[in-house]
This record gives sequence, structure tokens and C-alpha cells, in this order.
Amino acid sequence: MSNIIKLENGLENVEGFYCGATNVGMRPDKTQGDVAFIRSKVPCDIAAVFTSNTFQAAPIKHFQKYPQGFQTDFVLINAKNANAMTGQKGIEDIETIVTTLKEKHKVLNPVMSSTGVIGYRLPIDKISSAFDALDFNSKNSDHTARAIMTTDSFKKELAYKVELADGSSFNIAAICKGAGMINPAMATMLCFIVTDADIPKDDMQSLLHAGAEGSFNRISVDGDTSTNDTVMLLANKQSGIYDKEAFASALNKIMFELAMMILKDGEGANKLVAFEVKGAKSLEEAKTASMALSNSLLVKTALFGEDPNWGRIASTIGASGITCDDETLTIHYDDLLIYSSAFRELDKVREDKAYRIMKQDSFKVTCDIGLGDASFISYGCDLSYEYVKINAEYRT
Amino acid sequence: MSNIIKLENGLENVEGFYCGATNVGMRPDKTQGDVAFIRSKVPCDIAAVFTSNTFQAAPIKHFQKYPQGFQTDFVLINAKNANAMTGQKGIEDIETIVTTLKEKHKVLNPVMSSTGVIGYRLPIDKISSAFDALDFNSKNSDHTARAIMTTDSFKKELAYKVELADGSSFNIAAICKGAGMINPAMATMLCFIVTDADIPKDDMQSLLHAGAEGSFNRISVDGDTSTNDTVMLLANKQSGIYDKEAFASALNKIMFELAMMILKDGEGANKLVAFEVKGAKSLEEAKTASMALSNSLLVKTALFGEDPNWGRIASTIGASGITCDDETLTIHYDDLLIYSSAFRELDKVREDKAYRIMKQDSFKVTCDIGLGDASFISYGCDLSYEYVKINAEYRT
Repeated sequence: MSNIIKLENGLENVEGFYCGATNVGMRPDKTQGDVAFIRSKVPCDIAAVFTSNTFQAAPIKHFQKYPQGFQTDFVLINAKNANAMTGQKGIEDIETIVTTLKEKHKVLNPVMSSTGVIGYRLPIDKISSAFDALDFNSKNSDHTARAIMTTDSFKKELAYKVELADGSSFNIAAICKGAGMINPAMATMLCFIVTDADIPKDDMQSLLHAGAEGSFNRISVDGDTSTNDTVMLLANKQSGIYDKEAFASALNKIMFELAMMILKDGEGANKLVAFEVKGAKSLEEAKTASMALSNSLLVKTALFGEDPNWGRIASTIGASGITCDDETLTIHYDDLLIYSSAFRELDKVREDKAYRIMKQDSFKVTCDIGLGDASFISYGCDLSYEYVKINAEYRT
Repeated sequence: MSNIIKLENGLENVEGFYCGATNVGMRPDKTQGDVAFIRSKVPCDIAAVFTSNTFQAAPIKHFQKYPQGFQTDFVLINAKNANAMTGQKGIEDIETIVTTLKEKHKVLNPVMSSTGVIGYRLPIDKISSAFDALDFNSKNSDHTARAIMTTDSFKKELAYKVELADGSSFNIAAICKGAGMINPAMATMLCFIVTDADIPKDDMQSLLHAGAEGSFNRISVDGDTSTNDTVMLLANKQSGIYDKEAFASALNKIMFELAMMILKDGEGANKLVAFEVKGAKSLEEAKTASMALSNSLLVKTALFGEDPNWGRIASTIGASGITCDDETLTIHYDDLLIYSSAFRELDKVREDKAYRIMKQDSFKVTCDIGLGDASFISYGCDLSYEYVKINAEYRT
């Protein structure tokens, strides 16, 4: 048995990690950083999950040039420029920056992560100018979490202490950014997780992958997938303590909570909705239908309009191509049965109840296909005028 | 050689067809019909293409209960109620209506088509009351085309005269509705095509299918697919004239033009954009990438914002999962090269040119993958505040 205790603030809770940010002039608002770092006093094992977009950004390609099993003690992150679709030059720009870090600041195998507009070369001199401005011994998770934001309306950081039955403990903390282009496959999100747990290298990649499947890969703001999505886990082992089950629980929890924060911050979103599809013939079919619901424009606008129109839910399931039958299908909003073959027309009483459920900040839509026993939950949000505004004006 | 001549108005141009509409109280605005008919004085061969949505609406199921190769002389259409997800009762309701038509009005094998809200039983008495109000010998294509509209902002009707080399001719005309839920697979659209060409029954289904592939199955307003989509072709052979190639040209043209009208009327849409993907490894990959562009929320909002941000185009291609490489990819807006590996950053001159292209009501985005010779064009539109408004408030 383990106990997961939420801590105040973020990365500063984890033994041996330092972090901070500065503004080098890429972001007009000088009170918010645009270049940030996370450093460990000792080399870390590292695991990462990257975007499924074929056009992986330069920092991801640069990361993958390190030999398997490499260790690092430094992550450099910039906002405002994605360093994506920049070709070989984009990778060379990172190598230039990284060489400066290594030579001047005695850093081991630095890795980089970027977010922002696609198609422009990194301003190397500006970014390198950060190294003199930054205090590499600071522990300012707040500044760091704010520096990596793009269209995010609030910073995303979390920290947990994990107490094992014998009273020993380790810590895990993370910062994260993302508010749009969010789709299975972690679109336009960056997440940096650090831990002092004494986790064996071999556990890291599989646990991180499983955690992403249960969190970032189940949310959708707009069905798009970016070139830069990255989730990294850095472990410096400083606590000397580890328990696989307890660590997995804490890792899954921190990733799930951050994914929900992204969804709540979904561009222009007001509501968080869980779409559970159960009774499907296979897990793949359950997932297909659930993700179709999270991604449907007509479902999203009906959520925004608080319109208890189950027809759009049913139509989206039917359009998803999975095996289904309107005779066996049932649809619930929270605990309210809103469709079954015996009960098709929405009477005033159920419509009023449905309307009250939809008024909430979050609720659950459950579709039981009634043909099998596979289920899947994904999480979506509504689509508002604000989404259109944010994305029509993003670059300008 | 044949000559396709555009005619004024719609269905009334075709020999032996009658049409009209009336308001039976389903639509509050009494000046617009809600029940319409298309009738032929002699039995017609009929071909149809229906939605790929598993939950096909009751009128589609009713149609499919007729024996293969059946003939009809009557199509009944209603707005405001989709008769979808209504189960066996929904089909029985149609049978009741159709029996009245057959017995009282000497109609042969009437077929029905519905559009509107999902999940409510048809008001049988209201709809049947139309039969006394309608003049079955009228030729009012304008009323008919208006009666089948839902969120459409303008009626859609077209008619062509096809002159063959020997001076003989036949006519083809159509009415159509659709403005949202438009995705490959003809979402929420109804289209009724009539012709007096002497087309053999055997040509009808294959030509209609090919026409849909080149038109309605290439457009996307919002990526959703409805329960009711229907394209019907009725041929009463009254002209005695036919030429397969000439007929196919005219049929393809009428369906393509109607598809473009739907897209121009896309809910809240201001721009019509062609997305050509060429140089792909296979037709399937070209189609996947092209449709991904037509469907991407981030691309659609960038179009609305007139933001020449090719990064969203590239990112969407990369996310579509097709074989691609940023070294071989090129992107054009009309004739303007906006991305190639040698030319990644958008300078002021090209950005200004791109901006002027995007200001147009319609333009073309061409993505050459540079890895093969397969190509596909699809057609999309921008996503505006108005789309969200229309779809948040649709049912209320």
C-alpha cells in the first residue's frame, strides 16, 4: 500500500532538480519567460514519448540522435518557435546551442524541446543569451511552467509525495503545456516529469508509455496532432526509494490530472465531457467510437449550446463505422437514460433533466453498444466562438 | 461530341416530371414548404446512393425493402424531421403514409426522403394532409427546392439540356439540400436528379456512384456524416435519346456543381478551398491527406483568419499518417510556392502574396508530396464563428 500526497507547487519538491526561466525577447510580455531549463545535479535516466506526426520537429530528431540509454542532466525549453519543418538546419541550430551549453556550462547531453510557430529558424543568439541570465541553481517551477505556455490560459504544474508502507518516500512532479491541437497522440503538448524515485531504467519507458495511453492519448480538443508533442520522464534516483506499483500509480495520476488540465484549458472550452463507449465488440471499436465522439464538431457545438440532442451522439457512433444497432444501443447523460430503443423520443421531463446535466462544467456521456463487453473512455470539450477566435488569430 | 447547355430554373425543364411543395405546419414559416413531391407521369427506373452511417434513417430502410429493379413514379420529401433512430415504428409510419398515397392517389411504389432532427416520430396526419393541398400536376421546382432546405441559406437547383452531335437532346435537372454535417459519404444532404434521357437501367447505378465519388464524396464542411444522406436518380426515358458519355458528363457536372453550392453554403463558411494532394505514393494516401486537410479544424480556422501559416498545412499532412518527407514536400497557394525544403521561411514578399490569395472567395492549396504520382482533390471551407452559432442553436 502506498499513499499519494499532493504537494504545493511543482518541480522544486523533487530532490536534486533545479529549474527556472528568463525572457530573451521572443515573447513580447517581458514578465513571462520564453526560455526555460530543468537541470539535475546528477545525470538522469530519461524516457520519452513523442508525437506520431511524420514531420517530427528538430528537437525530437536531435533527441533521437543520442545513443540508446543515454543520460542527461539538462533540458532546455523555448516557446514562440517550434523549430519544426526547419530541416537539417533546424537540427544544426540545436547542435550549436547544445555545444555552447556543454562547453561553457559543463552540461551533460543536453536535450531541447520547443513549442510555437512552425517553419522558422530558432534565434540561436537570443536563446544562447539566456545562459548568462539564468541561475542554474534556482528552483523556480512557477516561472518554468509559465515560460513554456503558448495559448494556455493557466500554468500547469503538479507534485506528489509517494509514501510507502514502511514510511519511506519519493517525489514526482511535472510541468505541462497545451490547450489546443490536442488529439490522441498528444498534439501540441509538452510535459516534463521529474522524479527522485530510484526507478530502474528498464521500467521507465514502459510505464511512461502506459501513462500516456491512459491520459494524453485519450483527450481531444480539436482532433489535430502537432509536430512537437513530447512527454519526458527524468529520474535522478536521489531518494534511493522505489516501488513499481506505487510509482506507476503516481505517474498515471500525475499524467491524468495534467491531461484534464489541458482539456479544461482547451482553447475556448467551457465544459469537460467524458465519453464512455461500452458493450462494444472489441476494444478497437470502443476506442474508435469514443474518440469519434470527442472529435465530432457537431457533438462539440451541441455541448456548447447545451442542447440535449442525443441524435448527434447516435449519428456520430453510426458514422464511426463500428458494429452497432439502434435496437441494442443505449445512451446516458450521467445517470439519465436519454436513448434506448424502447424510449426514443425525448419527453419534456427527461429533456429538462438532460438540460440540467449539460449545464454542469463536466459530465459523462455513456453509450452502451449492447453487443459485446469492450469499453473505452475518452475526454473531450465543447467548441465555442472563442476556439475559432483563438485559432483564426493565433499567428497574427 | 455533346454540348451541355445550362437552363433556367430546375426540375420543370425535364419532360414528364412534376413537382411542388406545401406547408403542413412542421415549419413555422408558412411561406416555405415542409412537404414536397417529385412525380413522373410514367414509371421511372431509379438508382440511389445512401449514407455510410450504420444508423440509416427509416426512409432509406423503407426504400431498400422494395425489390431490386423496382420502378417508381413518386418521391415524397419532408423537412424538420429526419425519421432517423425511430426503429421499426419509423418504417411503419412510412408504410402508412405510402399506403394512403397508393390508394387515394394511384401512385406506384412511392419512396420517401426526410431531413431534420433525429429521434422523433413523423407526424403522419400532418404529412398526409399535404396530399389534398398539393397539385400533383404542378411544375414548381422553386417551391420544391425551398421546401427541402434545413440550415441552407439558399436553394440549390440546376438544369441542363444535353445536345448530341446529331441535334437530338435530353434534359437533366436536380434539386439538392445541405449546408453542414457534410463529409465524404455525403453527410446530411439530399439530392434528387431527374432525367428524360433514355438511359438503360444498367448504366444508372454505376454512373450515379461514380458521380458521387467525384462530387459529394469530396467535400467536407465539418467531417460529420448523417443518417439520412441520399442521392437519387430518376429516369423516365421520355426523350427517347441517350448517349452514355454525354450523359455521364452532364450527370458529373450537375453533381459537382451542386456539391460546390453545398460547400459555398457550408454553415458559416466564407471561403471555398480546393486541397490537391499530388505526388503521393498511392491514391489512398493522396485521398487520406487531402481529406485530412479539408477536415482539419486548425486549417479551417487559419483559412477563416486568412493566416498564410503553411505550418498547419504541413502539420496536418504529417499527422495524417501518409508517407511523406519534409525534404520532398512542396506547398503552393494557387501558383505561389509557399513551402519547399529550399525555401522554408516565409519572407515578407511571399507572405503578402499569400495573404492576397487567401483574401479571395476561393483558391487552391496544392501539396506535392514528391514521392509518387498519385493525386486527389477534395474541397473544404473555412470555419467561422457563425458555424458554432448555427450548430449550438440548431435544435432550440
